[in-house]
Parts: sequence; structure tokens; C-alpha cells
Amino acid sequence: MDLKSFSSTSVSTFEVDHVGRSYSTLISSFRHKVGVGFSPHFKCRRGLFLRTYSAPDNTYLTDKAGISSVGEDNLATETGLHINGTSGSIRSFYTRNLRVLDAFDDEYGGVVVDPDRLPSNPYTFAALLRLSLSHWKKMGKKGIWLKLPLEQSDLVPIAVKEGFQYHHAEPGYVMLTYWIPEGPSMLPANASHQVGVGGFVINDNNEVLVVQEKHCSPATLGLWKIPTGFILEAEEIYTGAVREVKEETGIETEFIEVIAFRHAHNVAFEKSDLFFICMLRPLSLKINVDDLEIAAAKWMPLVEFLEQPLIQEDSMFKKIVDIFIARLGKRYCGLSTHQVVSKFDGMVSSLYYNVIDNEDNCVGN
Amino acid sequence: MDLKSFSSTSVSTFEVDHVGRSYSTLISSFRHKVGVGFSPHFKCRRGLFLRTYSAPDNTYLTDKAGISSVGEDNLATETGLHINGTSGSIRSFYTRNLRVLDAFDDEYGGVVVDPDRLPSNPYTFAALLRLSLSHWKKMGKKGIWLKLPLEQSDLVPIAVKEGFQYHHAEPGYVMLTYWIPEGPSMLPANASHQVGVGGFVINDNNEVLVVQEKHCSPATLGLWKIPTGFILEAEEIYTGAVREVKEETGIETEFIEVIAFRHAHNVAFEKSDLFFICMLRPLSLKINVDDLEIAAAKWMPLVEFLEQPLIQEDSMFKKIVDIFIARLGKRYCGLSTHQVVSKFDGMVSSLYYNVIDNEDNCVGN
Repeated sequence: MDLKSFSSTSVSTFEVDHVGRSYSTLISSFRHKVGVGFSPHFKCRRGLFLRTYSAPDNTYLTDKAGISSVGEDNLATETGLHINGTSGSIRSFYTRNLRVLDAFDDEYGGVVVDPDRLPSNPYTFAALLRLSLSHWKKMGKKGIWLKLPLEQSDLVPIAVKEGFQYHHAEPGYVMLTYWIPEGPSMLPANASHQVGVGGFVINDNNEVLVVQEKHCSPATLGLWKIPTGFILEAEEIYTGAVREVKEETGIETEFIEVIAFRHAHNVAFEKSDLFFICMLRPLSLKINVDDLEIAAAKWMPLVEFLEQPLIQEDSMFKKIVDIFIARLGKRYCGLSTHQVVSKFDGMVSSLYYNVIDNEDNCVGN
Repeated sequence: MDLKSFSSTSVSTFEVDHVGRSYSTLISSFRHKVGVGFSPHFKCRRGLFLRTYSAPDNTYLTDKAGISSVGEDNLATETGLHINGTSGSIRSFYTRNLRVLDAFDDEYGGVVVDPDRLPSNPYTFAALLRLSLSHWKKMGKKGIWLKLPLEQSDLVPIAVKEGFQYHHAEPGYVMLTYWIPEGPSMLPANASHQVGVGGFVINDNNEVLVVQEKHCSPATLGLWKIPTGFILEAEEIYTGAVREVKEETGIETEFIEVIAFRHAHNVAFEKSDLFFICMLRPLSLKINVDDLEIAAAKWMPLVEFLEQPLIQEDSMFKKIVDIFIARLGKRYCGLSTHQVVSKFDGMVSSLYYNVIDNEDNCVGN
């Protein structure tokens, strides 16, 4: 069995990207390649052999710590677990008791513990984690990433006891980290923002599509407002605006431009909020209200919409409406969206910018 | 002792906002008032009496479940815990054994468990959590929010066993949720984006401020790029761009405009990324390189910067540079920032939009 070939190929099979602390290209993210996906949906294909770290000094754990109950992990051990130590030498062990946690190197001197090969027995985990940390420290490793699935939540207090902190969580898992070196952690931060969209939709009769929400603050009671909502995971701003309008009112639209955006802080769970105000063109007229969130929806004459006291008396709403009116009069340039691919990260992404034009009318649509 | 007054005033003392599923005002967030802060730094002021929920049917917990070891929680109980049951009647109990978890109502029919008054004993917590869930279900409650501090990670597996899922986490805590009603959870999602900034800085000699990073991907090796980085918690885009330039190069700048932004997905931990390209004006010229992240920094003649093959050969970089050049020639409108306050949420926030102008030159700076 050529164990060496497993060691050189297995890691790339599982490579996914996450962002480091800074941007490494002109504009794109610093793509931090790590050995295993952080996605809660990511499934590590079993049957492939994974690069692991050697136990320091080949220490044997005693059965007292429950190592013999590793269970399915033994399978990998017994069918050819290989140890890639600091010396770079490849050795194989067929004993059940010599183990550290299955893990991968990342490109930044860190270690990513394989979430699909965690011991099921908490005592085994506790012993292996301690041994692994000691080993990684000796190897000069920096950040340790430990993703614990929801169904293995009994391992959380064990990791915390060893000095791990929470990094982020999604419904199905919590990610913990441990920063080994002296000094502040250089690990990338958790997501910091949520993103909302609002859609200005105006028809040929100069009527704006407006809604009243079922759950509104007392301050906005009676206000007819534009449809708004949060964008979904991995959704585009332009898609999200069209979707929200459709969901709340049944109206089909097409995206024209982002005309402005708002940045606010300490909104939800201490996080920040970016809200993109979009101009949309209606493709249908018949309203069909979403009963769950919306109390009422209608086409409202533009003048009537603008003259609502709650809009006229509020500096922010007034400014946004002014922009909207300027845009209608083609005295304003919004940002349209363009798909771009950069060879530096290979990703398709959306670049929002004005159509460059020498005329007064900046509108390219 | 007027217990009723405590019940009517204590909740507002602790009110903070978080975002619900949709936006409730014209553009601002749906501010979901809940009874206790989600901030890891938030400290519930002890000594105030908190509204709690009654145990169903005034059930007494037995000592077998460890309730007598609630510890500091007994203080509140013994000095005047009041129970606000479904009937709305106010009753007081001075027994140590009749308890559910201290919690607050939120405005959406949900419950927020007080993270500062969790039992320290896991057995007590397990018994109280089960009792509380049963009680909240009977009361028709919807979303339950349970914030567990890092130092009480031993409670995590207990909550998961009762059916809680992770919602989000920050270094010092993990937030778990439980959605009681039938159907999909209507609780707001976790933060979905990280936000980066890049600064185009050009001096009077038509030289662009550029850097080479220490940790760059092989694809960008040798590229002279603009300074970039992530914005900090609650930081403004315009502040973040100025800070990153200063940190990486030592150059002082002032913010002019956002000239474009990029939206990419599945970047870090399955999250999305918004990157704002900013135009900055230099206020100093002497470069002082940040040795930690930056290998080199310099003022580079604009033509030389543009003609770098790595920029010319990449459609995204090329487009951004084209926008930059158009903006320099005043043939492009960027978005400048304006502080606005809306009375609907009382928040100061930054609105980014073009200066409305009838001339070709959209530049208002």
C-alpha cells in the first residue's frame, strides 16, 4: 500500500476556502485554504485516507482514558492510518491506541480538526484533544479549528475546558478555535453583517408599490412603505430585491439599479446592517398579498406616497425619496450590476457600478 | 412591596434591539425588542427584579432534581420573585423550589432566557429547562433564545438534548434557539456577510499608493495592489478604508467616495463577502510599512500601475481600474457618505449616495 500517495493527494480533495484577515488581491478575498470544509453540510468522503499528525514521541494512551472505544475511528487506524510527523517521514501504525485527532494543515500554519472523524466517546475526545494540543504546540502550530456538529455537543465543554473559544455557529454546528502563539489571535473574524434590500417599484401610472406590515413598530404605524427584507444565504442583492417584492406583493419585477445604501451598527446581536435600496421595473400589476408578513399592499399614487407625514418628517426617509425622484427624472446615477470573473479566485461575482457615460443622463437602462 | 411595579418596569430597562425577519420601516430594520441583550458584553444589572414565568400548575420541583442548589438564584426568589402567569395575575412565592428559568418576553411571542441568571448546577439547569419548555409551550410561546456564556459551556449539551439548535456564537458565548410552533422557524438568521474595503489613493504626481502582501496567493505573486482589509466591528466603511491604508502604509488619507462594490458568495465559512472600493485623498506622503502583513509599499506611477499584466489580463481588475480612471477624469459618479438619523429607530447611520447634480461632473467633493 502506497501510503505516501494518500498523504499527498487527500488534502486537496477536501480543500475549501475561507477568508484570512486581509485581502490578498487587488480586491478579492484572501483565500485561506484549509484541509476540511467549514460548511455544516460538508460531508467528508469516508474511505479516503486523510493526513494526520503524529503523536508526540509516539506516546501511547492508556485504555483508562477510554481510547479503546474510539469505535469507527479504529477502522481508519486499523486499515492504514499513516502518521506524517515533523520530520516528514511517513510511517504506518496498526495499533489502536496511538492516536491524535484526525486533522489537516491549513496554509497559515494552523490545523483543522476533521469534524467527520471525531471520537464519539467524550473521554476519548478529551484525552486525544489534550494530547493533540500538546503535539501541535510542539510543532509550532498557530490557529486550531475545531468544528463540533450539533449531535456531538457533549464535546463542547471538553474543548472549552482545554482553552478553546467559540468562533461562530450555524444551526447544525459550532466552530471553536484555539490560538496557540503568544499575542492576539490572528484568526479571521466571524461574519459581521446582515444584508437587507428594499424595492422601489413604480408603474406607468406613476404609482408606487407599497405595503403595510403586520409586525411594525408603533412609530411606523400607518406608514405605506416599499417592500423590504433580508437577502438569503448566497443570494444576490438584485435577486433578493426582486424576490422580496414578489413574496410580499405577488408583483413580478426586474432589477434596474441600486440607488443608495445605508450602513447601521449594533442592530442584531451586536452585528451591523447594510441595506440596499433598489429601483425595480414592474413586469406585472396584479397584487397578491403575503398573509404571513403583510397586512396590506397597493399601488399608491407617487404624490400621495411622498406626502405621507411619516416620510416628510423623517430626514432619512425624505432623503431616500428625494434620490428616488431624482432617479425617476434621470438626474441621478444608480449602480447597476455586472457579472465578473476574476482569475485570481476563479469566482463569479457581482460588481456594482455606474454605467460610465459622458451625458447628463447617467442611466444606462 | 409593590411587585406589580417591578413587572411593568423591569423589562424596558433591559430592552435592546435585534432584527426580525423583515424590515418594518421604509428602509430601516425591523427592530425586534427583546427582554435582554444579546451582546456578550451585556451585563444584566443585578438587584433589579425581573419578570419571570410561572411554573405550570404551580408544580413543585423535587430536591432530587437538584433544584435546591440553584445558589444565587435563590436570592431573587427569596427576596421577592413574582410570577406573572397566563392569567395576568401577580403572585409572589418565597419557596426555593418553585422555579422556571428567569426569562423575558420578546415582542414576537418569544422568550429570552436571562444569561446572567442561569443556574450554575447543570442538573438544576436540566430540570428547569425541561420545566420551562413545557411551560412556554403551554403558554403558546414561539421562539426561545438561550445565550450560554463560554464559562457555562457544560450547559450546551443539556440544551441540545432538549431540542435546541445553535443560532450563532461569538468568542464568549453561544446562542441557542428553540422554535416551538409547527412549521419552519421564523427566527431571524445569523449574520451573513463580512465586509471588506480597499483604498485607491493617488497623489499630485499621479502616483498610486500600492502594496505587496506577505501572504498572497501564487496567482497574485508580484502584483502591486491597493491596500485592502476587513472593517472592524461597528466600523464605518469610510473609516475602515482610511484605517487600513494607514495601518498598511502609514499614509494618512480622507475618504472621498465609494466608487463600486463587489458581492461574492461562499467565501468564508459559507458566508458572503461585500467589498467596497473607495477613493481616498492622501494627506501625507511618507510611507511606513506594516511589517506584519505587508512586504513592500510604494507610490507607483499610475501608468505603471495600470499596465501591470496581472491587472490588464483580469476582467474584474481591469473594470475596477477603468472606473477609477473615469472617476479621476470626473466622468464617473461615486457614492459619498452622509450621516442620517431616522426617528423611527433613533439610530445615526450612514447613507451612501451620489451628490445629485445636473452637470456632467457628478463629483461633489
